[in-house]
Amino acid sequence: MARKVRLGIIGLGAQGSMYARFIADGLVPNMEVGAVADTDPAKQELAATLAPGASFFGGYEELLDSGTVDAVVTTVPHYLHPEIGIAALSRGIHALVEKPAGVYTKQVAELNAFAATKPELTFAIMFNQRNNPLYKRLKEIVDAGEIGSILRSNWIITNWWRPQGYYDQSEWRATWGGEGGGVLVNQAPHQLDLWQWICGVPEKVFSKVAYGFRRNIVVEDEVTAVVDYGNGATGVFVTATHDMVGTDRFEILGDAGKIVVENSKTATVTRLRKPERELSEGMDMGAVMKLFMGELDTDELYTTETIEFDSVWGAQHAGVLENFAANILDGTPLLAPGSEGIKGVRLANAIHLSSWLGKEVPLDFDEGEFLELLNGRIRAEGKFSERG
Amino acid sequence: MARKVRLGIIGLGAQGSMYARFIADGLVPNMEVGAVADTDPAKQELAATLAPGASFFGGYEELLDSGTVDAVVTTVPHYLHPEIGIAALSRGIHALVEKPAGVYTKQVAELNAFAATKPELTFAIMFNQRNNPLYKRLKEIVDAGEIGSILRSNWIITNWWRPQGYYDQSEWRATWGGEGGGVLVNQAPHQLDLWQWICGVPEKVFSKVAYGFRRNIVVEDEVTAVVDYGNGATGVFVTATHDMVGTDRFEILGDAGKIVVENSKTATVTRLRKPERELSEGMDMGAVMKLFMGELDTDELYTTETIEFDSVWGAQHAGVLENFAANILDGTPLLAPGSEGIKGVRLANAIHLSSWLGKEVPLDFDEGEFLELLNGRIRAEGKFSERG
Repeated sequence: MARKVRLGIIGLGAQGSMYARFIADGLVPNMEVGAVADTDPAKQELAATLAPGASFFGGYEELLDSGTVDAVVTTVPHYLHPEIGIAALSRGIHALVEKPAGVYTKQVAELNAFAATKPELTFAIMFNQRNNPLYKRLKEIVDAGEIGSILRSNWIITNWWRPQGYYDQSEWRATWGGEGGGVLVNQAPHQLDLWQWICGVPEKVFSKVAYGFRRNIVVEDEVTAVVDYGNGATGVFVTATHDMVGTDRFEILGDAGKIVVENSKTATVTRLRKPERELSEGMDMGAVMKLFMGELDTDELYTTETIEFDSVWGAQHAGVLENFAANILDGTPLLAPGSEGIKGVRLANAIHLSSWLGKEVPLDFDEGEFLELLNGRIRAEGKFSERG
Repeated sequence: MARKVRLGIIGLGAQGSMYARFIADGLVPNMEVGAVADTDPAKQELAATLAPGASFFGGYEELLDSGTVDAVVTTVPHYLHPEIGIAALSRGIHALVEKPAGVYTKQVAELNAFAATKPELTFAIMFNQRNNPLYKRLKEIVDAGEIGSILRSNWIITNWWRPQGYYDQSEWRATWGGEGGGVLVNQAPHQLDLWQWICGVPEKVFSKVAYGFRRNIVVEDEVTAVVDYGNGATGVFVTATHDMVGTDRFEILGDAGKIVVENSKTATVTRLRKPERELSEGMDMGAVMKLFMGELDTDELYTTETIEFDSVWGAQHAGVLENFAANILDGTPLLAPGSEGIKGVRLANAIHLSSWLGKEVPLDFDEGEFLELLNGRIRAEGKFSERG
């Protein structure tokens, strides 16, 4: 029988239970559940159903010290990911942190720095969308230079509709002290990660963020951000949780092509025959008039490819779990190294900060200032203790 | 025989010739060409072909003083629209100004102020897109409140591809002193007008504008603007002239519905059965899970309508000419009153100004400061005299 990684699931909420089910259903062949931890004792029954042979603990430290697991996944509120990640790694236990890696860069940087001292351990993050075959393929196309240098990107991702009842489910949700934000830290981290993974890390951000705009919450439910990559390239990111008929449309313009992704499902890839400026320089007004009138054979100018993959429920998440275990067992390269998590957190922090300050901010903003302003919101909320 | 308005065409370039042809072809039944003016004497032959009975003048003032026309259209470089508009109105001649109404708000405000002293004369602007049946219908839908209050709009209009040869056609094109800007003053004024016509006038603008980004020009060929309507609503406008496979996608989110327009041709209009917040408040988590899994009958939540009109070449422009003449002849309400032209100019100026200052600016920016910064660019260019 092949070796299996014994996973500890820390936090048996919606996400943790889902992973336990994937493993029980055989979707992650190189993994088994060794233990479950949850602060709610009532979860023991659920744990026994989902993972019959696994131990159950009330606290994550008991789980980490029990000797029943080789690795953990942190399906707990976002603020706890760095703390639990460090606690696991410090005991020689491999760590897969849930997204986002944390709420503020300072705490994620601490996690990364600690993980860097344990190169023998596997440190990964649940960016399941990096395991979406469509985005993997688009990343390859962009990295191979098939659409040239990126000039502009635009992602409208508003199909995160959530009713008020969703926010009222638990005390920590949609709070500054418990969750650390709204759509930027809960729903959109995947897209923030994919955006910078494919299009690069911007240098500056200007944002318009609306807090409790269409929901009775204190955190953001609507975001518009404009980024500047410092080389003339720009990007726009729009997200919201109140658009019932949401949009998911991602457009990337390069100087030798273009990609338009609809619904994270279908991509139209245009590859120019030559760089756009060469086509521009080589075309006389006669050819241009023909182009405008639709009389020019565009095949001479570019090709168009449509890419679509069937998606299978759970395959992305299960694939990340399997890849994490494979890295532990035989060094298979990670789909999403844990140290990458900070990039999306930094982008989300910069978007928040720009809206708080009412001005454009650099991506290497003052982390102390961010934390101070975040703590001001936690104090005003009066439900949770300050962070830092 | 019905009365006809005798039109003076000032400037027989591409646009002026096109209008002469529309009139010759009978597309504007209540209009005839009385005279043509062009500073290029060689245009006299073209004028004789397009409008055989019309007089020809080398200067617009001669045309205005000739007694051969009741009205004029100003198909001349943008800076001249206000000056010629005022000259016509001051002689009791009706004026249809081309878009944009001018290059900077100060000169357009002078035109508007003068026109206001001549209420007996017709003062209109060639916003032919306001005569596009699709946008007319969408304006009705929004004004009737069918999608509720507007929360967000997003227009990517990058199908204005122009090669270098286009910019090299004439000395004034794509200069600060001759044209006053790039895509914002030449190609995009229609969309800037439609955007504010349908979605309202914003209070603040932040922009990223790239000058000579992908073309050998000094003016802008790439624009990203974020606007703030002051009531929580926001908008994004993106335009460029270097996207060979351009996008035209306009999305308007209201609190009771949504409109998505593709290629200025097809609109998908979603009307919610109740305002979105009511739907949000009334839905329990069971219903939400069903919605996410695609098991809910969305007919109970909203209806979807697709709107599409056949477009006929020239019909929009000819319709504006006919409407202008009809207003002169019998007081038919104007599709695009001349005084409306300033709104798009103000928006374009604010977008330029924000990029020059590197910060968000109010729509009621300092007009003197704008003109000073524009003149600075005209001086640096060294080809044209300053404005003011």
